[in-house]
Amino acid sequence: MAILEVTQRGAVAELVMNAPERLNALSDEMLAALQESLNKLAKSRDIRVITLAGTGKAFCAGHDLRQMTAMRQNPDSGAAAFKDLFDRCSAVMARIQSMPQPVIAQVHGIATAAGCQLVATCDLAVAATGTRFGVNGVNVGLFCSTPMVALSRNIPRKQAFEMLTTGSFIDAERAQELGLINRVVAPEALGSQTSELADQIAGKLGVAVKIGKRAFYEQLQLPTAQAYEYTGQVMVENMLHRDTEEGINAFLDKRDPTWTQ
Amino acid sequence: MAILEVTQRGAVAELVMNAPERLNALSDEMLAALQESLNKLAKSRDIRVITLAGTGKAFCAGHDLRQMTAMRQNPDSGAAAFKDLFDRCSAVMARIQSMPQPVIAQVHGIATAAGCQLVATCDLAVAATGTRFGVNGVNVGLFCSTPMVALSRNIPRKQAFEMLTTGSFIDAERAQELGLINRVVAPEALGSQTSELADQIAGKLGVAVKIGKRAFYEQLQLPTAQAYEYTGQVMVENMLHRDTEEGINAFLDKRDPTWTQ
Amino acid sequence: MAILEVTQRGAVAELVMNAPERLNALSDEMLAALQESLNKLAKSRDIRVITLAGTGKAFCAGHDLRQMTAMRQNPDSGAAAFKDLFDRCSAVMARIQSMPQPVIAQVHGIATAAGCQLVATCDLAVAATGTRFGVNGVNVGLFCSTPMVALSRNIPRKQAFEMLTTGSFIDAERAQELGLINRVVAPEALGSQTSELADQIAGKLGVAVKIGKRAFYEQLQLPTAQAYEYTGQVMVENMLHRDTEEGINAFLDKRDPTWTQ
Repeated sequence: MAILEVTQRGAVAELVMNAPERLNALSDEMLAALQESLNKLAKSRDIRVITLAGTGKAFCAGHDLRQMTAMRQNPDSGAAAFKDLFDRCSAVMARIQSMPQPVIAQVHGIATAAGCQLVATCDLAVAATGTRFGVNGVNVGLFCSTPMVALSRNIPRKQAFEMLTTGSFIDAERAQELGLINRVVAPEALGSQTSELADQIAGKLGVAVKIGKRAFYEQLQLPTAQAYEYTGQVMVENMLHRDTEEGINAFLDKRDPTWTQ
Repeated sequence: MAILEVTQRGAVAELVMNAPERLNALSDEMLAALQESLNKLAKSRDIRVITLAGTGKAFCAGHDLRQMTAMRQNPDSGAAAFKDLFDRCSAVMARIQSMPQPVIAQVHGIATAAGCQLVATCDLAVAATGTRFGVNGVNVGLFCSTPMVALSRNIPRKQAFEMLTTGSFIDAERAQELGLINRVVAPEALGSQTSELADQIAGKLGVAVKIGKRAFYEQLQLPTAQAYEYTGQVMVENMLHRDTEEGINAFLDKRDPTWTQ
Repeated sequence: MAILEVTQRGAVAELVMNAPERLNALSDEMLAALQESLNKLAKSRDIRVITLAGTGKAFCAGHDLRQMTAMRQNPDSGAAAFKDLFDRCSAVMARIQSMPQPVIAQVHGIATAAGCQLVATCDLAVAATGTRFGVNGVNVGLFCSTPMVALSRNIPRKQAFEMLTTGSFIDAERAQELGLINRVVAPEALGSQTSELADQIAGKLGVAVKIGKRAFYEQLQLPTAQAYEYTGQVMVENMLHRDTEEGINAFLDKRDPTWTQ
C-alpha cells in the first residue's frame, strides 16, 4: 500500500497518510508523497475539495526523528540536510495554502509538533473527541519553531506560548474553543462528518471558492486599506464570471442555478 | 422617509437604515447616504458616539444584487461600475473606522455579506438574540472577498474560512464567542442596551476617545516596537490636554472632573 | 524593603513589586527597578523562568499619576518628561519580551491601565479568581494608548475596543476566555500554581526555550513565507545543539535525557 493513499469520491479527493507504524510521521517519503499528490490535484479540474486523514493510532506525530538523527552522520553534522528537510516541510505547508481547493484535516488520535502544524495549516479541521494536540518538541529539547508559525496564526498568543513552552497537550474541545479546529465530532462520525463538510463546499461554484481561498490568505497579510483595494479587484473578477452571473440571476429569479463548472 | 434617518439624542447620533423592502441593502443610494451622513458627523463637535441600526426584518443583507445585475448592460459588462461600487463600499467602511466617534452596530434579524462586513467594521456591536450572521455570497457564486477583510480581522481564521466557504450562518451567541460582536441582548432590549452602551462612552472625555480610536487602528497595523513609539507620542499629546489634566486632578482629589468638552 | 524584591527559588527568579501603598504603580522607581533586575537576570545562566507578582491589594494599578502630575510644573508643561516616562515604560515592556527566559505574571486584586499592559506583555499569566482587569484611563480622560498595544495583541479587537472606551473591568474568567491570561486559580493557590507552571517550564532544556521565545515574537511580525524561512533556520540551529541531540536520542532510546544545561 502507498504511503499516501489518494481516493476520489465525487469532487472530493481523500488523502490518507498511511504509515501507521511511524504514526504517519512527516518522513522524507511522506513529504514527497504529499507534495507530489497536492501538485497533481492543484491542476485537477474535477476536484473541488481535499480531505487529509491518517491511518492507525495517530493523525500525524510530526517529523521522523530517526531519519533526522541519521542525518547527523553527515560531515556537517546534518546542518544542510536539516535545512533541506525544513524547507521541504514548509513547502508542503505553503502548497496546502496555495491549493486552489480548500483542504480539510480529518484528525484523530494525536496531532503533535509538525502534525499539529499540519492541522493548523489546513484551511479547515474536523477532529474526533479524544484527539490530543500538542507542540511538544520542547520535551526533547527541540522547540516547535516551524509549527508555531501556523499555530500562532490560528490561536491567541498566550495560549500558543503555553503549549510551546510546557509541551502540554490540549484536547479537541479546547482546540475548538481556541480556534485551532472547526468541529469536534464522535469518533465513529469523523469520516462522515468530514465528508459532509467537504460535500457542502464542493457543492459551491468552484471558481468562486478558488478565487476566494487565494484572496483569503493574500488579504490577511496586507494593511486594511490595501486589503480592500486588492479584494475589490477580486470581487470584480468574480462578478465577471459567467457562472456568477447565472448564480445571481437564479437567486433573483428564485430558481436553482445551472452552472457550467 | 429618508433612506437613512439621522436622529440626535443628546451626544449620540442614531443612524437608521430605512429600506426595509430591500432588507437595507447597500444600494448606491444607501452607500451615498451613509458616506454623506458620516462625513457630516465627523465634523460635529456635539456628537460623541454614533449608533447604526436598520428598520424592518434585517439589519442589512449586503449589496443590492438587482442594481449590480443592471450594471451588466454596460459595454464593459459592468467591470468599471462594479469596481466603482466596491470602491464606494470600501470607502464607507474606511470612513466608519476613521470617524472621530466610536460607531456601534445595533443588529437584528440578519446581517449577511456586506451587511456582516458592516457589523465587523463598526467599532462595537450589540445584537439581539435570534440574529443570524453570514458571509454567504458563495451560495450564489460570489465569494465574500471584501467582507472577509473585516471579518478576518475580527474572528479566528479557521472560523472565518468556514463561514466564507460553506455560506452557513452563525447565531448571535456564536458571533459573540468568536469576537464578531460585543453583546447579545433580548430583542425588546436591543435599543435600550445599545443606547446605554453609547451613553456610557459618550460620558467619557470626547477628545480622549477621539485620540484613542484613531490610535487603536493605527497601532494595530504597526510592528510592536513602532506601535509603542507611536502610542507613546499619542499619550503625551493626550496628557497635555487641559481636560485630561483636570480629569487626573479630580481623580487624585477624589472629586468629579469639570470638563470643558 | 526594596521596591522590587528578587528571590531565587531553584531555576526560577521570583520578582515581587513591593509598593502596596501605591498599588504597585509603575513609578520612576518601580520602572527603574524592573529594568535593572530584568537586565541582570537576562545575563543569568541559572535562571530559566521569571515570575512577576505584587504585594498588597493589587498586582499593579498602572502609572503613578501623582508623579506624572508633578511633571506638569516643568517649563514645557511636562511634555519631555511624559515622553521620557512612556519611553522608559515601553522599554520595560520590550525588555520582558526580549528576555531569554519566559516571564509569568502572577496576578491578583486589580491589574489596570499599564498594570493590565504588564499582564498582556508577560509571556504567560496566572490570575486568582476575583482579579479584575481594566484599561480604564479613559475614565480620567487619558486613553490607554500604550497599554492597548499589548492588549490588542492578546484579545480580539472588538473586546479590546470595548474595554478601552468604556473603561469597564472584566473578571479573571472573562480574561481567560478572551486570551489575556492562561489560567484562573483559587486565591490561596495562586503562588503554588504559578510556581508549578514555572517549574514545568524550568524543567525543559533552557537553550531550546530561549531560542523558541525569541523566535516566537520575531515570526509573529513576519509574513508567513518569511516566518517559515526564518524559523527553518532556527530549527537547524536548535537541532545542532548537543543537548538537543541527547534529548532526541534519549527519546528514541526510551530513557531520560542527561542534559549539560
